[in-house]
Amino acid sequence: MSDILQRLTAILEQRKQANPDESYVARLHAAGLNKILEKVGEEATEVILAAKDGDQRELLHETADLWFHSLVMLSHLNLSAADVLAELERRASEQNTTER
Amino acid sequence: MSDILQRLTAILEQRKQANPDESYVARLHAAGLNKILEKVGEEATEVILAAKDGDQRELLHETADLWFHSLVMLSHLNLSAADVLAELERRASEQNTTER
Amino acid sequence: MSDILQRLTAILEQRKQANPDESYVARLHAAGLNKILEKVGEEATEVILAAKDGDQRELLHETADLWFHSLVMLSHLNLSAADVLAELERRASEQNTTER
Amino acid sequence: MSDILQRLTAILEQRKQANPDESYVARLHAAGLNKILEKVGEEATEVILAAKDGDQRELLHETADLWFHSLVMLSHLNLSAADVLAELERRASEQNTTER
Repeated sequence: MSDILQRLTAILEQRKQANPDESYVARLHAAGLNKILEKVGEEATEVILAAKDGDQRELLHETADLWFHSLVMLSHLNLSAADVLAELERRASEQNTTER
Repeated sequence: MSDILQRLTAILEQRKQANPDESYVARLHAAGLNKILEKVGEEATEVILAAKDGDQRELLHETADLWFHSLVMLSHLNLSAADVLAELERRASEQNTTER
Repeated sequence: MSDILQRLTAILEQRKQANPDESYVARLHAAGLNKILEKVGEEATEVILAAKDGDQRELLHETADLWFHSLVMLSHLNLSAADVLAELERRASEQNTTER
Repeated sequence: MSDILQRLTAILEQRKQANPDESYVARLHAAGLNKILEKVGEEATEVILAAKDGDQRELLHETADLWFHSLVMLSHLNLSAADVLAELERRASEQNTTER
């Protein structure tokens, strides 16, 4: 896995146990699944708006936000980036033999 | 960068030039930015539904779809996964000194 | 309630019992809540794209689609437009005395 | 048109000219189209979550929020509820002769 996704996975696991007063990620877990999914929906909308505005800097910022909050969601449900990358890996391997 | 994200980036660049009759990714590029962003919005909704259903297998499938279509979007706008990972890297480094 | 929302409510109740082979609305109910909510999410994205494109005709078309599918969702959960309009009515009355 | 949608249309036109310090709607217009569309996307996500939770009271609240913010969006782009209802009316009339 990429160094940064591996590092983020470790950071997110640690923050899951942190004090909500001291960590944004801990606050999201404490607020619960709906709050985390609201953030996923919000960031998806902001990605779409930045892409329509053709603002590359803003688009990178919002895509990073979208991926970050989907990592928090995975962590909340005891999954991680590695599981998603394994699924993408599986598909890419199939792409060698089938049209995509 | 992770092996699979690096490999996907290369595959997506290649498919950008492919024949739309033979490649799903080429068809998305040919259909244009709105079509790609509709897919990002669709997959975000499907991620939210799978998370609410507590269906881990479906959630991994839909999160992979969401990341995949955001990679197609980045490619369409001449950006890539590496740019988003660099932004996440930058933030993680700041996290060492500031509360997140 | 508006004539058309009243008429649509009646049509939607009738279609709820219709043959899925003959009615789009009956097919949505048969496919279930997730399918209906996917349509709500899809249409919300299309509304946003049409608004960004400044395409008034497309925006009316997509907003009508969004409202229509939210009416199907309400019907699926045994609610109706009248309930939402009553909530909006209640808020508008409060607006006379409080800032909004 | 329904009494409340007619009343809301009038209120929203009035608020468009109001002081942003005194009106939520005036603040949305001042913040601009992206801010209004972010609210549409946010409320769509909250509708989906409330529907999945089977919480009828919350669902009515969030659907009212979604419709309200789509009315603000229409007003921002010089359209109104009447235009959307006319489109729904047109479709309902076609439904008498064609399958939907």
